Amino acid sequence: MTYCCGILVADGLVMIADTRTNAGLDDISTFRKLHLFGGEGRHTIAIATAGNLSATQNVINLLAEGVDSNESPAQEHSSVNRIDEAPTMYAVAQLVGRAVRQVRRVDTDAYEQESVAFRVSFLVGGQVGIERPRLFMVYSAGNFIECTADAPYLQIGEHKYGKPILDRAVTFKSDLYDALKIGLISMDSTLKSNLGVGLPIDVAVIRRDAHKFEVDERIEAYDPYFRDLRERWSAALRAAHASIPRPPYGPDKA
Amino acid sequence: MTYCCGILVADGLVMIADTRTNAGLDDISTFRKLHLFGGEGRHTIAIATAGNLSATQNVINLLAEGVDSNESPAQEHSSVNRIDEAPTMYAVAQLVGRAVRQVRRVDTDAYEQESVAFRVSFLVGGQVGIERPRLFMVYSAGNFIECTADAPYLQIGEHKYGKPILDRAVTFKSDLYDALKIGLISMDSTLKSNLGVGLPIDVAVIRRDAHKFEVDERIEAYDPYFRDLRERWSAALRAAHASIPRPPYGPDKA
Repeated sequence: MTYCCGILVADGLVMIADTRTNAGLDDISTFRKLHLFGGEGRHTIAIATAGNLSATQNVINLLAEGVDSNESPAQEHSSVNRIDEAPTMYAVAQLVGRAVRQVRRVDTDAYEQESVAFRVSFLVGGQVGIERPRLFMVYSAGNFIECTADAPYLQIGEHKYGKPILDRAVTFKSDLYDALKIGLISMDSTLKSNLGVGLPIDVAVIRRDAHKFEVDERIEAYDPYFRDLRERWSAALRAAHASIPRPPYGPDKA
Repeated sequence: MTYCCGILVADGLVMIADTRTNAGLDDISTFRKLHLFGGEGRHTIAIATAGNLSATQNVINLLAEGVDSNESPAQEHSSVNRIDEAPTMYAVAQLVGRAVRQVRRVDTDAYEQESVAFRVSFLVGGQVGIERPRLFMVYSAGNFIECTADAPYLQIGEHKYGKPILDRAVTFKSDLYDALKIGLISMDSTLKSNLGVGLPIDVAVIRRDAHKFEVDERIEAYDPYFRDLRERWSAALRAAHASIPRPPYGPDKA
């Protein structure tokens, strides 16, 4: 499994991904799932991946080396084949979608013979040129949605454990580093409840118009800040529920 | 969807269930999913249900009216056909399992013709006679597991949103009404993140050796305690993440 989230606020974008991969419980490994492109010049793009590792790695390679320019005569034709040529983030999301469909065309028959589902998803976030930072989620079919200010985050992988804190704590107006902190708490909730998601965590922060990765960190298990965050959050949750009065139902009701 | 949880502590048992059912997003309704049996004399039993409503209601009816006494010549034969005859909670869980298999036998062929999966699950908790309170989870195949002190809760339905708080806050030694409070917080996290789970909530508390339902409440949307709990919990979470220092990654790092 995997857990990745992207948070889009007015000041920029936070991308967080774990590194746990597993083919069964007895075959667990560590692979980077947060991929950075550019960081100098026009393109500052972070892509987080979930799903079949061979397929997602394939897509990431195609983005750098070149995606087929036309899928079929009936489908979209684009002269953009590499991520560093994309004029906008929308074009980047389209390119990721085309790469997904290219890999899908090659792999699907063999996957079916092995009774494996072709299941991948991507968070595609960043800034290109003077356009505002944008965040997209690309699905297994290559189609995609864009994150908007109403719900300023997107998640892929094992997303449910970490959703309640995002629903409560993040708005489009949140400070960029508050967004990072809440993203790390969301990751912590997931790590705590699902063994399929594991440390280390990769983190990227893109500040609007900075045209570089303001943060590009790998957070290891011994990272003092993340350990402290986990302890403080646990203590705060205990204190929080302790401060709520006893339910009035039952014999003390009257 | 559905969310139900049962929490087993030294002093007794808490059972909580929502009431939302849906056949698609446009066909949402309210059905009781927490069913109480006994409450006087030897049996004090609460059963929470998830899955195909027709199948779970069928099972609940069979428990009161009588389950077939033998499934097939090769399988377990029991002289206990009704829940009020069960000598132990283990026998109750077996009886629920037999009822599930009885309904399954009748329904499966037609379900398959309709391409509907037979998917049900049950939390079966309570106390029979002088035995300690016990909690079981019964699956679609009629097999079941028992809750133990190491992880003193079981969940069915949409369980992931509400799991982090249970993992952090409940132990077998928790006070019975703390367990109820944490169960309600777990329900709140689920309500907040998934529209398929909805108010009102049904709650039962069984205190060890009390041989009655100490709490048998329906919590409606306007319930002042539950509203206060939700507001306090939101405020406490905001305060909790605000109290955690800013991440040291990025430009302020040096």
